[in-house]
Amino acid sequence: MTAVDQHPAAAFEDNDQKPVGHGRMLRKEDPRFIRGKGRFCDDVQLPGMLHLAILRSPVAHARIVSIDTSAAEAHPKVKAVVTGAALAEMGLAWMPTLSGDVQAVLATDKVRFQGQEVAFVVAEDRYAARDALELIDVEYDLLEPVIDARRALDPSAPVIRDDLDGKRNNHVFDWETGDEAATEAVFAAADVAVTQDIVYPRVHPAPMETCGSVADYDRIDGRLTLWSTTQAPHAHRTLYAIVAGLPEHKIRVISPDLGGGFGGKVPIYPGYVCSIVASIVTGKPVKWMEDRSENLTSTGFARDYIMRGEIAATRDGRILAVRTNVLADHGAFNGVAAPVKYPAGFFGVFTGSYDLEAAYCKMTAVYTNKAPGGVAYACSFRITEAVYLIERLVDCLAYELKMDPVELRIKNFIQPEQFPYKTKTGWVYDSGDYEPTMRKAMEIAGYDELRAEQVERRARGELMGIGISFFTEAVGAGPRKDMDILGLGMADGCELRVHPTGKAVVRLSVQSQGQGHETTFAQIVAEEIGIPPADIDVVHGDTDQTPFGLGTYGSRSTPVSGAAAALVARKVRDKARLIASGMLEVSVADLEWQKGSFHVKGDPTKSVTIQDIAMRAHGAGDLPEGVEGGLEAQICYNPENLTYPHGAYICVVDIDPGTAQVKVRRFIAVDDCGTRINPMIIEGQVHGGLTDGVGMALMEMIAFDEDGNCLGGSLMDYLIPTSLEVPDWETGFTVTPSPHHPIGAKGVGESATVGSPPAIVNAVVDALKPFGIRHADMPLTPSRVWDAMRGAPQPPI
Amino acid sequence: MTAVDQHPAAAFEDNDQKPVGHGRMLRKEDPRFIRGKGRFCDDVQLPGMLHLAILRSPVAHARIVSIDTSAAEAHPKVKAVVTGAALAEMGLAWMPTLSGDVQAVLATDKVRFQGQEVAFVVAEDRYAARDALELIDVEYDLLEPVIDARRALDPSAPVIRDDLDGKRNNHVFDWETGDEAATEAVFAAADVAVTQDIVYPRVHPAPMETCGSVADYDRIDGRLTLWSTTQAPHAHRTLYAIVAGLPEHKIRVISPDLGGGFGGKVPIYPGYVCSIVASIVTGKPVKWMEDRSENLTSTGFARDYIMRGEIAATRDGRILAVRTNVLADHGAFNGVAAPVKYPAGFFGVFTGSYDLEAAYCKMTAVYTNKAPGGVAYACSFRITEAVYLIERLVDCLAYELKMDPVELRIKNFIQPEQFPYKTKTGWVYDSGDYEPTMRKAMEIAGYDELRAEQVERRARGELMGIGISFFTEAVGAGPRKDMDILGLGMADGCELRVHPTGKAVVRLSVQSQGQGHETTFAQIVAEEIGIPPADIDVVHGDTDQTPFGLGTYGSRSTPVSGAAAALVARKVRDKARLIASGMLEVSVADLEWQKGSFHVKGDPTKSVTIQDIAMRAHGAGDLPEGVEGGLEAQICYNPENLTYPHGAYICVVDIDPGTAQVKVRRFIAVDDCGTRINPMIIEGQVHGGLTDGVGMALMEMIAFDEDGNCLGGSLMDYLIPTSLEVPDWETGFTVTPSPHHPIGAKGVGESATVGSPPAIVNAVVDALKPFGIRHADMPLTPSRVWDAMRGAPQPPI
Repeated sequence: MTAVDQHPAAAFEDNDQKPVGHGRMLRKEDPRFIRGKGRFCDDVQLPGMLHLAILRSPVAHARIVSIDTSAAEAHPKVKAVVTGAALAEMGLAWMPTLSGDVQAVLATDKVRFQGQEVAFVVAEDRYAARDALELIDVEYDLLEPVIDARRALDPSAPVIRDDLDGKRNNHVFDWETGDEAATEAVFAAADVAVTQDIVYPRVHPAPMETCGSVADYDRIDGRLTLWSTTQAPHAHRTLYAIVAGLPEHKIRVISPDLGGGFGGKVPIYPGYVCSIVASIVTGKPVKWMEDRSENLTSTGFARDYIMRGEIAATRDGRILAVRTNVLADHGAFNGVAAPVKYPAGFFGVFTGSYDLEAAYCKMTAVYTNKAPGGVAYACSFRITEAVYLIERLVDCLAYELKMDPVELRIKNFIQPEQFPYKTKTGWVYDSGDYEPTMRKAMEIAGYDELRAEQVERRARGELMGIGISFFTEAVGAGPRKDMDILGLGMADGCELRVHPTGKAVVRLSVQSQGQGHETTFAQIVAEEIGIPPADIDVVHGDTDQTPFGLGTYGSRSTPVSGAAAALVARKVRDKARLIASGMLEVSVADLEWQKGSFHVKGDPTKSVTIQDIAMRAHGAGDLPEGVEGGLEAQICYNPENLTYPHGAYICVVDIDPGTAQVKVRRFIAVDDCGTRINPMIIEGQVHGGLTDGVGMALMEMIAFDEDGNCLGGSLMDYLIPTSLEVPDWETGFTVTPSPHHPIGAKGVGESATVGSPPAIVNAVVDALKPFGIRHADMPLTPSRVWDAMRGAPQPPI
Repeated sequence: MTAVDQHPAAAFEDNDQKPVGHGRMLRKEDPRFIRGKGRFCDDVQLPGMLHLAILRSPVAHARIVSIDTSAAEAHPKVKAVVTGAALAEMGLAWMPTLSGDVQAVLATDKVRFQGQEVAFVVAEDRYAARDALELIDVEYDLLEPVIDARRALDPSAPVIRDDLDGKRNNHVFDWETGDEAATEAVFAAADVAVTQDIVYPRVHPAPMETCGSVADYDRIDGRLTLWSTTQAPHAHRTLYAIVAGLPEHKIRVISPDLGGGFGGKVPIYPGYVCSIVASIVTGKPVKWMEDRSENLTSTGFARDYIMRGEIAATRDGRILAVRTNVLADHGAFNGVAAPVKYPAGFFGVFTGSYDLEAAYCKMTAVYTNKAPGGVAYACSFRITEAVYLIERLVDCLAYELKMDPVELRIKNFIQPEQFPYKTKTGWVYDSGDYEPTMRKAMEIAGYDELRAEQVERRARGELMGIGISFFTEAVGAGPRKDMDILGLGMADGCELRVHPTGKAVVRLSVQSQGQGHETTFAQIVAEEIGIPPADIDVVHGDTDQTPFGLGTYGSRSTPVSGAAAALVARKVRDKARLIASGMLEVSVADLEWQKGSFHVKGDPTKSVTIQDIAMRAHGAGDLPEGVEGGLEAQICYNPENLTYPHGAYICVVDIDPGTAQVKVRRFIAVDDCGTRINPMIIEGQVHGGLTDGVGMALMEMIAFDEDGNCLGGSLMDYLIPTSLEVPDWETGFTVTPSPHHPIGAKGVGESATVGSPPAIVNAVVDALKPFGIRHADMPLTPSRVWDAMRGAPQPPI
């Protein structure tokens, strides 16, 4: 089913005018954010609260010889100093990660990356805690740092994770997908095969709010309340229960307003555990908040893939196969920073939006002396790297075939009648209709005119580039066991309760980091149950107040919890129908639902509103035989598949030939995320992701020197885009509803982050075509572009 | 079904030894109470919180001429001074009561009782607020106070409620039940008819904690959080929504730990509303806490019935009919202080435990210039007065017939085979087996020996009395529309959620005021689902965290919510059985439940625990086709009937002939509340109620002078019993399960308060038998007993 441009998303900017349901509606949460009344983790103030600061390793790889905490302990405002040795006595020096590895909460034997947690101080205020860190004396015996992933595989390299029994090298895993032999056969027979080495550098989500927590352990009833900057409060609670031995029903994880997450707030960081331990030890509430430097050097890095991509095609541009070999750098601990046991998303979509004959991928991951990597930064299990790879490869192929990159893509698209489409790695794309989306982007861009302009400009020696990317994502983690964290499935609970006066509350297992859940979910429920969104409270981010579920990452809120919300509202509506039938004294079959009320068919004067029904359900009169009181329902929704949003992006860049500065002149993004609940929020998501993309394509990289010192520890070094670096985004949409989602929605949280880097890089490479360049690695800073223009070798990664 | 003494309530004083389910288990909430870590309303401290104090009328009846607040407003720490006139502008000067009346939040036109709310001050601290009250100058024009309910009916009496349109006198209501003509016929034909005027004085529940609230209105999102000392948070929320126009989903009522309620914390008091208004007006959190004097003079009085009882019988002691005429004094506002539109409980049980031929009751209620009365103080809709009436009447009859009061009762008991027993007023007693209960009390007391001892003592001139009461209560407000408050039915919701690791949380609509819900409900669920009580968290007292329901009063927690908890646990167990069948790969029919696990019939080696099932339900493996993830359920339980606990009480008193001081020497209480969840908690409830009874029978009365000044405004004047005034209670029990309650429990919160006053009064009157006395009114203070011994007329009430 395809319905391009036919979605009835009328423009209702004024919320008072907002009818029931979907549409453009101002965000319910914005009044508090705009007025500075958001309640973030660092706003939590509890009586008697203490403050925690973490001593971090200044070196990348060293044995700890001794730690002297006596001077810090003597500080008059210090309440506790805790080292790895003390944690070891409690059995808490190591914690399991979300990926089946273990990570040191505080280093005991040795430090494995610069910034690793070595000790913590708890003091009366955060200044005293920081001061006291400087009084701790640690003696280190330096070891060779392993910074390059290729070096990590060398048998002569030191073993970083000597804590792992029987681990004789720095391997994390070797995995593969697809049919190697079949792919080799296709490659051997193909007219054309292009090979390209492509690096996706290490980057950081850099949310506005750093990570932190406030732990409040009640010694009397053994209850732990933990405010923390987490995207996955329920998964964290269960993990704390399993790890720390605290009974699960005595743990309350509250994820208050979050200042961005982008996947970086999925993992459990040592700081959270430290604050818990500190509260248990001191009997007081304890706050830990990272500063910017800690956040940028120690917390949750993403990407860091060295990829060799190969693409095979016929001479006339029929793509036959893709093959890739990936070396993934996970840093010192695997997947503490990602809900990824397995690069599932990469394996799912590295074949892109194209109908191939064969595909194969092999991936090797290694430990290095870098901070833990692999964070799910707008990546849905590594789809970001996969989309970048295939969209660069297609452009390389177009370069070799001297074809227009749009033409090459359209020629190879999976066709609408092929959906559900099973890829050569066994994934099933649920739906798609790619060509209209591509054509819509071309129409907005004025693609042919742009190409004509490019010809003219090139003739004048100007460097104008037009870059295309077309992506298919796999989001809303469904029932795939290879995407399951904790062995806790991929289901999400949702509860809807209508109060006696007809106002309602919906409780979500997922958690907003700024996406506007309070609005979107109110609209989803409103559409189904006919109560205005303003009358529906959305509760999330508190394990005591919400049903179990995995949290918000991988664009899964709308695909999974959104489906749950729609279905639970339908359950409530079904019950309301029974009650209405009693109130109107007609059979259920004689009732007609018109958003917000049931009418007797054929008699428009007889009707009851959902509000009337709510009051009746709570005792204001009799209920039909067998109908329980109350008007509420709960659901645990397990999607039958992921959803597969797609999009077509076109980027226009100009490069200053004198400075090699890249300017993104225009960017056209046409997204298809199925049914659109609130187009304004979707556009906001897309704008944010596109900005991310500009950062990654042109500016952002976490770099290390050869000793393993991180070179990006502040926003002076790690550059993120501002309004000056980005154009006015031009967005459009098509609507191809997901056939298995109850309202056809797909999830859009990561689309633009996933889809924009290849469009920008393709545009830059296109601009550099006069120099005979087929590829250049991100970030395309002026110096890299300058070097590329001059044929210099790529700088080392 | 009767199972006297056969309940397997083993003695497990050590919680570590506590097996799953019912039994004697230490209270889970006590560690925090014992260590001073309870969190009561007055413990709530919020940043920037202001304090509210209420100016109360010093006179009982007066027109307000003027109020000058200028001096108070000029106080440097005062933030706001609000009068009735200001509230009237907001449309909030009057509020509806829980009984369909209206009450002034702050007096506008006139004051109607001493202690009525006239204005309030909000200041930076509670001392400044109190000080500023004295700066408010109110001019009153005095009116005749109407204090005596009989005077209120006099056409010459002033009309107190001139605010009520068309209200031409001080009537509240006239109601009747039973068949007047049939009863008259039985009386006319009876051998014996005894008439007795009986007064149940005005008393006060006097909880340890007074009433109060902290209101926190968020101007940005329009959300009101109200911590308040309420027994009925959900009903309050709905009423605030209806009254104040605040949307229901934006109101959160939190009832934290309560220091006793006894029915006095069911109503909405003006102070709660004042704190809400104050927070809206100031934009700050505002705390209001009554002092003891305010609590004792203005808040929630009970009883105040002037009753004429008549009982007809055959010469040999067959009771034929009961007739009664009641004049009820409701004070200045009806039922603000009670969830009672209608004296349902009185009408339900005034015929007692006896099988009669006819019964009739007429009741008239009046307004007087006293503080609002009619609070449901351990009364379950006025059963306390009814039981007192019938048990006094039976003793009067025994006196006239010269029969032993036990013999007379046993002769007239409803017989076990008559249950369910429909009374002559149409109520259906669900179950009972009275004689074994009576005989058990006699056995514990050594009744025959006591009577022999009495003969001896009387011969020596000593005043020893033996008093009996046998009561049947109607508790756990069921589906009777005449017991429905707010038109919101009598159902209660309950939710049970089992977490992945097999710990659980149960959420109740009812709220504990000290009854031990956190323990009892954990045990109820544990018994059904096999998770140890320590692993089950009980959440209550927070509208945001619990399902809708009416709250705890009328002994309804166990009868209604207890049933809901058992049934919701069975729902969860049914789902667990489906999952177990998948895990063990056998059909559901082949599974056997053994508390805490499912076993394959015939193969004891194959089983799964409820904890295993919980982990599986949350994704650790596949679920059978069609089974949703998660392990939880919700229910809205509407009981099909009330439950009817009964009990036999025997009291032994000695009266000092020189001082007329009554000493309760022994008190034997045998209660039958059906299935006993935690016998220790039940005994605690009984001990408390018996102590209440000693207070009401011997010490407590709210008295007024002729100007309407309340004479009991402190615990120096209003005496409540201490350990010095009470004996070591002797308790026993029988078990007659309720046939319609899923675990057969009946509710025991009020039994002893209901049943003990008649036993004590009967004992005192029995002791005074040598003086030819058939009746004396409570409280039987030394001066009253002294007067009675000398034949003096009863003091005016």
